[in-house]
Amino acid sequence: MTLTRVLSGFLLAIALIATLPGVAKATDDPLPSWNDGSVKKAVVDFVTRVTREGGPDFVAPAERIATFDNDGTLWAEQPIYFQLQFALDRVKALAPQHPEWKNTQPFKSLLEGDKKGFAAGGEKALLEVMAVSHSGMTTEEFEGIVKDWLATAKHPRFKRPYDEVVYQPMLELLAYLRASGFKTFIVSGGGVEFMRAWVEKVYGIPPEQVVGSMGKQKFELRDGKPVIVKLPAVDFVDDKEGKPIGIQKFIGRRPIFAFGNSDGDQQMLQWTAAGEGPRFMGLVHHTDAEREWAYDRTSHIGKLDKALDEANAKGWTVVDMKKDWKRVFPFESSSTGSPAMELVK
Amino acid sequence: MTLTRVLSGFLLAIALIATLPGVAKATDDPLPSWNDGSVKKAVVDFVTRVTREGGPDFVAPAERIATFDNDGTLWAEQPIYFQLQFALDRVKALAPQHPEWKNTQPFKSLLEGDKKGFAAGGEKALLEVMAVSHSGMTTEEFEGIVKDWLATAKHPRFKRPYDEVVYQPMLELLAYLRASGFKTFIVSGGGVEFMRAWVEKVYGIPPEQVVGSMGKQKFELRDGKPVIVKLPAVDFVDDKEGKPIGIQKFIGRRPIFAFGNSDGDQQMLQWTAAGEGPRFMGLVHHTDAEREWAYDRTSHIGKLDKALDEANAKGWTVVDMKKDWKRVFPFESSSTGSPAMELVK
Repeated sequence: MTLTRVLSGFLLAIALIATLPGVAKATDDPLPSWNDGSVKKAVVDFVTRVTREGGPDFVAPAERIATFDNDGTLWAEQPIYFQLQFALDRVKALAPQHPEWKNTQPFKSLLEGDKKGFAAGGEKALLEVMAVSHSGMTTEEFEGIVKDWLATAKHPRFKRPYDEVVYQPMLELLAYLRASGFKTFIVSGGGVEFMRAWVEKVYGIPPEQVVGSMGKQKFELRDGKPVIVKLPAVDFVDDKEGKPIGIQKFIGRRPIFAFGNSDGDQQMLQWTAAGEGPRFMGLVHHTDAEREWAYDRTSHIGKLDKALDEANAKGWTVVDMKKDWKRVFPFESSSTGSPAMELVK
Repeated sequence: MTLTRVLSGFLLAIALIATLPGVAKATDDPLPSWNDGSVKKAVVDFVTRVTREGGPDFVAPAERIATFDNDGTLWAEQPIYFQLQFALDRVKALAPQHPEWKNTQPFKSLLEGDKKGFAAGGEKALLEVMAVSHSGMTTEEFEGIVKDWLATAKHPRFKRPYDEVVYQPMLELLAYLRASGFKTFIVSGGGVEFMRAWVEKVYGIPPEQVVGSMGKQKFELRDGKPVIVKLPAVDFVDDKEGKPIGIQKFIGRRPIFAFGNSDGDQQMLQWTAAGEGPRFMGLVHHTDAEREWAYDRTSHIGKLDKALDEANAKGWTVVDMKKDWKRVFPFESSSTGSPAMELVK
């Protein structure tokens, strides 16, 4: 058998394998839950440009860093941030061990369901709730507590575990970027250890690619066994100006692709935009009160005001959830509102 | 052409390609600069065990986290830490712009070459030198300064750029681990931005896999362009107890393989050892005054005392540089002291 024959068999075999069912073809749509339009086109065009070897906008794989906010960008954030719901649920679960909370604010209001009283406690009340729910245990214990909560708690509107209330189009975008040689990171104001307990399973993002807010920690030997204990003190807040700093400290390389949804993401997008070469800056605009929520400039959660102005001024990509997403959540059947589906009917 | 024929051609082609020169075979030695012996065997046995699919010690690729100290483990650290040499050189380079330093300590002693006077300043003097050399510029400016220094400064003993004074056996170990599906990280007391300027080129470790000490930073807009400015304040010291905390904060997953060389690495090795399943803990013991340096229990730099006791007590792997390394530096020709070479002669 000559080398030529062997190689032609080899090439034929590859060609054949590529046509087998289940193997993705280049013509398959990598973003099936996105409606056709300028937003989807902007994403696909960008990825095509930076991955075309020899092209003017080619970016080496090592430089293909993509960063995503989490709350409101990858999973929902209404009616309250899911991590805050976790903290409130945790206080209720711990209450039997803390009889003194019945007479101590902010726990008293919280346990009595007195929202107004709890809100009166302001930031101090929130920090106290975060402290008792997020510190005083080892990092391993905390991971177990978060996983238990996700296994039992349900989102009040969708009656699903919180880690199912994630955006199907963004799951597809993460997978598409990774298949195109990108390394995908989370850069979120949420707690880094809260996220790491579940994001690998849900988003395919490993713990070492999660940047978030964090508390101080202490290393100690307990009966000769080393543990890391979570302390009730803030170490780093990964929000607004903190996001580019978190990127610099944890990743050390400027993203070429970044996605957020609120003013807390504005500086991350500015930092991304200011690098050399091709850049993609995206914002999810929550415009769909029917399938999700509609909120922006005046919302207490996920306020999108200045970042929206800058996006409009600078031509950043803004996702109109209602118009651009065929499907919002994985558990939802394909929307009948999709133009593509209309054509089929 | 039947499918069988196509597939047999495909398999034959693969078999043929594997025999071509330049393609590594499974029998090639992945660690040619390591002498045969218990240390090399321990490394290879560990990697073989954790990568054998279906075996009792198999570890999924995502969990194959390997962490390495830098100073004294991947590159040399004598006669002084290279980053300190960078700082001292930087003060000299900046002196013309700071005439006041001629009469201000610790700069006066430093510029006059008065080692005793400088040493008298203790930690405060060091911090001042670190502050003027490592802050007051943007992160991008600092990266350029480090690269310029590496392009011009020479190690006093080897007359080579500092980033060539790295250990050939450890370069091979890093490559071997990566080829075996490990993700290799640096976890060093050195400055994270000092290292990121060159470690990708030298070690093949990307910036997002470097954990180190760091100063505080500030995000700001300068004429509308976002920059991150390095501030003269310590944020995190990645040494001793700081190493497991750095691992937890930056990586978020416990290593299964860790290598250090000093008491500063003891807690990282303890943290690695305390996980479930197979574990590898290694120490480089500097025993070779001829080719490198010999130092351990009483050294001011890279003191190896308590960690050596714990390694001996617990059966961690200790590299005897003189005995276990056939070659120390890439620029050095193969040592004639190697047992393997003796046999050939």
